Amino acid sequence: MIYFLDLFGVFVFAISGSLAAGRKHLDLFGVIVLALATALGGGTIRDLILGAQPIFWVADPIYIYVAIIAALITIIASRTPPLTSTVLQIADAIGLAVFTVVGTQRALGFEVQPVIAIMMGVMTGVVGGMIRDMLAGEIPLILRREIYATASICGGVVYILTIHFLHMDVLSTYLAIFIVLALRLGAIHWNISLPIFHDRRKEGNRMNK
Amino acid sequence: MIYFLDLFGVFVFAISGSLAAGRKHLDLFGVIVLALATALGGGTIRDLILGAQPIFWVADPIYIYVAIIAALITIIASRTPPLTSTVLQIADAIGLAVFTVVGTQRALGFEVQPVIAIMMGVMTGVVGGMIRDMLAGEIPLILRREIYATASICGGVVYILTIHFLHMDVLSTYLAIFIVLALRLGAIHWNISLPIFHDRRKEGNRMNK
Amino acid sequence: MIYFLDLFGVFVFAISGSLAAGRKHLDLFGVIVLALATALGGGTIRDLILGAQPIFWVADPIYIYVAIIAALITIIASRTPPLTSTVLQIADAIGLAVFTVVGTQRALGFEVQPVIAIMMGVMTGVVGGMIRDMLAGEIPLILRREIYATASICGGVVYILTIHFLHMDVLSTYLAIFIVLALRLGAIHWNISLPIFHDRRKEGNRMNK
Repeated sequence: MIYFLDLFGVFVFAISGSLAAGRKHLDLFGVIVLALATALGGGTIRDLILGAQPIFWVADPIYIYVAIIAALITIIASRTPPLTSTVLQIADAIGLAVFTVVGTQRALGFEVQPVIAIMMGVMTGVVGGMIRDMLAGEIPLILRREIYATASICGGVVYILTIHFLHMDVLSTYLAIFIVLALRLGAIHWNISLPIFHDRRKEGNRMNK
Repeated sequence: MIYFLDLFGVFVFAISGSLAAGRKHLDLFGVIVLALATALGGGTIRDLILGAQPIFWVADPIYIYVAIIAALITIIASRTPPLTSTVLQIADAIGLAVFTVVGTQRALGFEVQPVIAIMMGVMTGVVGGMIRDMLAGEIPLILRREIYATASICGGVVYILTIHFLHMDVLSTYLAIFIVLALRLGAIHWNISLPIFHDRRKEGNRMNK
Repeated sequence: MIYFLDLFGVFVFAISGSLAAGRKHLDLFGVIVLALATALGGGTIRDLILGAQPIFWVADPIYIYVAIIAALITIIASRTPPLTSTVLQIADAIGLAVFTVVGTQRALGFEVQPVIAIMMGVMTGVVGGMIRDMLAGEIPLILRREIYATASICGGVVYILTIHFLHMDVLSTYLAIFIVLALRLGAIHWNISLPIFHDRRKEGNRMNK
């Protein structure tokens, strides 16, 4: 079940990457690279940091095929009426939620401390989108917008706490997915964001310039 | 022979990185960093993903020396009449072809599936140039221009197929190099490119904005 | 002692990342990501390339806590009068010096060749700042400004030479730190920089365009 949700997350994130490629007028190869980077980038960095060899998509290339198929579908579908923004946002939130839990679980398999496991969950969820934005020449959206990573962090914390204190394995998984989804969709619906850090002392502290 | 072609590829890619640094008015250190990143970046990412320790240039630092020498030569030569664009493009195509085959071979040594071996060949050939462009503050050229990665993919496929079905080892190597070269130089000569993905539904699908 | 200097370096580099985030109006999560990336990015890439598992901050999460605390202090302190630019530059130079020596030492523990150890020291010192600038959408400062990486390289060379020929362990450490500090602060004080590479043959050598 989680495996299929994980593949669904790959599919959705690959669409997100393909759409970004379309906005930048990349060619066919560029669309596939952005699809792969968005869908697999977070998990790849996680596995590298954990020393989790082989990397998940090297061990099981179906992840690659799903991302490429998503890219091709996005290109073909670009002549049809668009999906509504809402559908895409809900799909993206599901991807974020599943990636968070999958990443946290994978990290716990390497007996790291809880804070590391939570970080790995967040990285699985958000680093792909950061690579997508950097390849597209933009400051990663995730660093300047509404509740996104925060939802992922909360999901990871809930997962770790319920696993540790209540020993509920399957239930923890779905509870954490639910928490991320609820926070993310709630933030979209009520347009809630984190405070922005405006540094008021502009020039004074440019220590590196 | 392949070893020398590989070092030639490093040399050529390092020149490409140095020229990009020159266009951005980087300092001496910046030129060397872009030379190293362009020449060694693809193989480094490949080795990290394969878990191929030690990384090729840690095991054999001659790769570093060749890249640094190429950077210094580029700087010194900037006062002389330029090489023609054609000479540089042919050299770059040779680098792409050799890197593709070397990367695919290296991956096969780790008993990965064919699709992974092909990806590792392409990454060896193109990721260095992508890092170069991102360090220079640009959207990677490779994502929006004529046949480049596609030539690399075709070379990798031919290599895998001929190795697998015909068991010709040395011949496969040269055949694959020839395929990449022919496709890349043909694309330059006839100015062929991949179709560009123009998404027509601009605002409607910006699911992350 | 070196351990505390190392944590001090993490603290200072995290402030540098937080200030960059403030200039780009990132949100709270963005500030923490830039703080972590600047403070831990160089050592992370170093450990990945060396195959040094577990990564230093996975083994000892105090590095994460120090970086996050530095980010929070930077945000809170943004309402107070700023530290002078000079204080920040000296702190940054200490961070560079300590990271260089720590990185070189860590590499020597993996029995790599001297040139690799020096590279690892430089990467520990400068790659975090490069990631910070790329995340903030800028060409890395390090590639186009005054003596910075050069100070780090000289410190690494001095460390390797004195360890190898004079077998002075603790003394080498402090000598190398002093060399980096002296060169870096001297470069700031007298405004010395590396020559910039202006390529005069603009269009002629754009082999990739």
